[in-house]
Amino acid sequence: MDAARPLDALNNARDKRVIVELKNNRQYVGKLKAFDIHINVVLESAEENVEELVEKEIDGKTVSVKTGKLVMKRKLGVVFIRGDTITIISPE
Amino acid sequence: MDAARPLDALNNARDKRVIVELKNNRQYVGKLKAFDIHINVVLESAEENVEELVEKEIDGKTVSVKTGKLVMKRKLGVVFIRGDTITIISPE
Amino acid sequence: MDAARPLDALNNARDKRVIVELKNNRQYVGKLKAFDIHINVVLESAEENVEELVEKEIDGKTVSVKTGKLVMKRKLGVVFIRGDTITIISPE
Amino acid sequence: MDAARPLDALNNARDKRVIVELKNNRQYVGKLKAFDIHINVVLESAEENVEELVEKEIDGKTVSVKTGKLVMKRKLGVVFIRGDTITIISPE
Amino acid sequence: MDAARPLDALNNARDKRVIVELKNNRQYVGKLKAFDIHINVVLESAEENVEELVEKEIDGKTVSVKTGKLVMKRKLGVVFIRGDTITIISPE
Amino acid sequence: MDAARPLDALNNARDKRVIVELKNNRQYVGKLKAFDIHINVVLESAEENVEELVEKEIDGKTVSVKTGKLVMKRKLGVVFIRGDTITIISPE
Amino acid sequence: MDAARPLDALNNARDKRVIVELKNNRQYVGKLKAFDIHINVVLESAEENVEELVEKEIDGKTVSVKTGKLVMKRKLGVVFIRGDTITIISPE
Repeated sequence: MDAARPLDALNNARDKRVIVELKNNRQYVGKLKAFDIHINVVLESAEENVEELVEKEIDGKTVSVKTGKLVMKRKLGVVFIRGDTITIISPE
Repeated sequence: MDAARPLDALNNARDKRVIVELKNNRQYVGKLKAFDIHINVVLESAEENVEELVEKEIDGKTVSVKTGKLVMKRKLGVVFIRGDTITIISPE
Repeated sequence: MDAARPLDALNNARDKRVIVELKNNRQYVGKLKAFDIHINVVLESAEENVEELVEKEIDGKTVSVKTGKLVMKRKLGVVFIRGDTITIISPE
Repeated sequence: MDAARPLDALNNARDKRVIVELKNNRQYVGKLKAFDIHINVVLESAEENVEELVEKEIDGKTVSVKTGKLVMKRKLGVVFIRGDTITIISPE
Repeated sequence: MDAARPLDALNNARDKRVIVELKNNRQYVGKLKAFDIHINVVLESAEENVEELVEKEIDGKTVSVKTGKLVMKRKLGVVFIRGDTITIISPE
Repeated sequence: MDAARPLDALNNARDKRVIVELKNNRQYVGKLKAFDIHINVVLESAEENVEELVEKEIDGKTVSVKTGKLVMKRKLGVVFIRGDTITIISPE
Repeated sequence: MDAARPLDALNNARDKRVIVELKNNRQYVGKLKAFDIHINVVLESAEENVEELVEKEIDGKTVSVKTGKLVMKRKLGVVFIRGDTITIISPE
């Protein structure tokens, strides 16, 4: 992903596994198959990860706490991700 | 949905059942009938799913808790979904 | 609303009653009279629906609870809805 | 406001009193004097309405409650409303 | 500010004092010196107003309450306001 | 910053110290070195200011309270600010 | 990063370490390898930093408090950052 223009960098990542993160804090990991100038992206063999939630007792109250660790929520296979919802793309 | 450009991937999913997820966390499942470059989408035989809410007693208090499981909220038949509200599209 | 392009689908719904839902969770139901490429929409004989709120006692406290059911808030007659606020359009 | 294109509908409402609602839940009522393709709008003899707030005692606590009724907040005379903040326009 | 097109209305307000309100609820009052098609605006002798906050005792608790009244926060002199943050412009 | 068009006003402020405020309530103060039609801006000798937070005891509880006063958070030197995040620009 | 146009300033920062901050408050630090007119950016040897959270006891309750200090969350190597999510870019 070394390149003079940002899209060249995405081109170098084609067919490699990348992490795609969205504005709504979801994370998708999969093989980068396609992208365009809007940064619409298609991943193959994709998984959706979410932040792990554990129940914890704080001061005698049971509350849900985010551990900061990402865990797999579901396998999606092929997924089309709309560009304007993406924050970052990074090779795994 | 294997393709060099993201819209080719949507084209491969035409007439197949897809999951469409929105920025407001709603999910629509239906047969992909049409789409355009704005990712405006038309589904047929569509259903809207929402996260299941159950009432649970925590520390003596009744609260509504999301189970993380999606349940059908309503059948919509045909639905036009505006592209800029979409996060992902994935074959079911 | 069966069509190769999403706007054809809206065209098929012209003069029929449709549900239009907005990003702010409001719902309008009326006869589809006009639309354009921005998905600006004009409805006739339109009503605005909102989620029903009931007062409920939970653990000795009176709270407002959404029932998930939509109830009519007001009759609007003709209404112009700006496209970029719309999430879905579906024949009733 | 019966028309084949949405902007024709606005044209039919020119010089009539209309309700304009914004994404931030404010409502303006006034005579429609001008609009353009971005749905920028100019109203004359305009008023800004807000949802009525009343103080109510619930379970021994004084809280502010929205009644759902709109009450006039201020007279504005002429007002220019930027199109991308508008959700709906409807003749009064 | 009587005009066939919205920008004519702004033109009529040039060199007059106007109220400019933003999506983040801030309000600027000043003399309208310049604007463009994006509704970028320049005010002169401008002030920024914010909603007055008073401390009030409710049920034995001190809380900050908005009075709904606008009070001057600071004098800005000349201010450039980016169009896409504006909701309304109205002669004072 | 007196000008017929908003960008002329920014041009008059070139090489002077300006306040730039963002939609996320951050404030940057520095010498205006460059800007373009998207209102992308470059400041030199820039500082980032944030609203001062103090700990205060209210009704026996320690809470963090915003004083409304801006205090320097960090020196940034040169900073590029993306236009669509800006609300206002004003000479200091 | 001294320049007449904002993008010249980014050009001067090429191959130097920069801080990139996003609308969702995340911060990336890395070597600036590429950018385009949308301010899409590619960083190399990048790290993601987040505000440090510490557990603190306030009035007998354990709460999570942000210290305002940034700590490294993860090493990302190469990262593509979508322009419309960026607020500022500044040489380290």
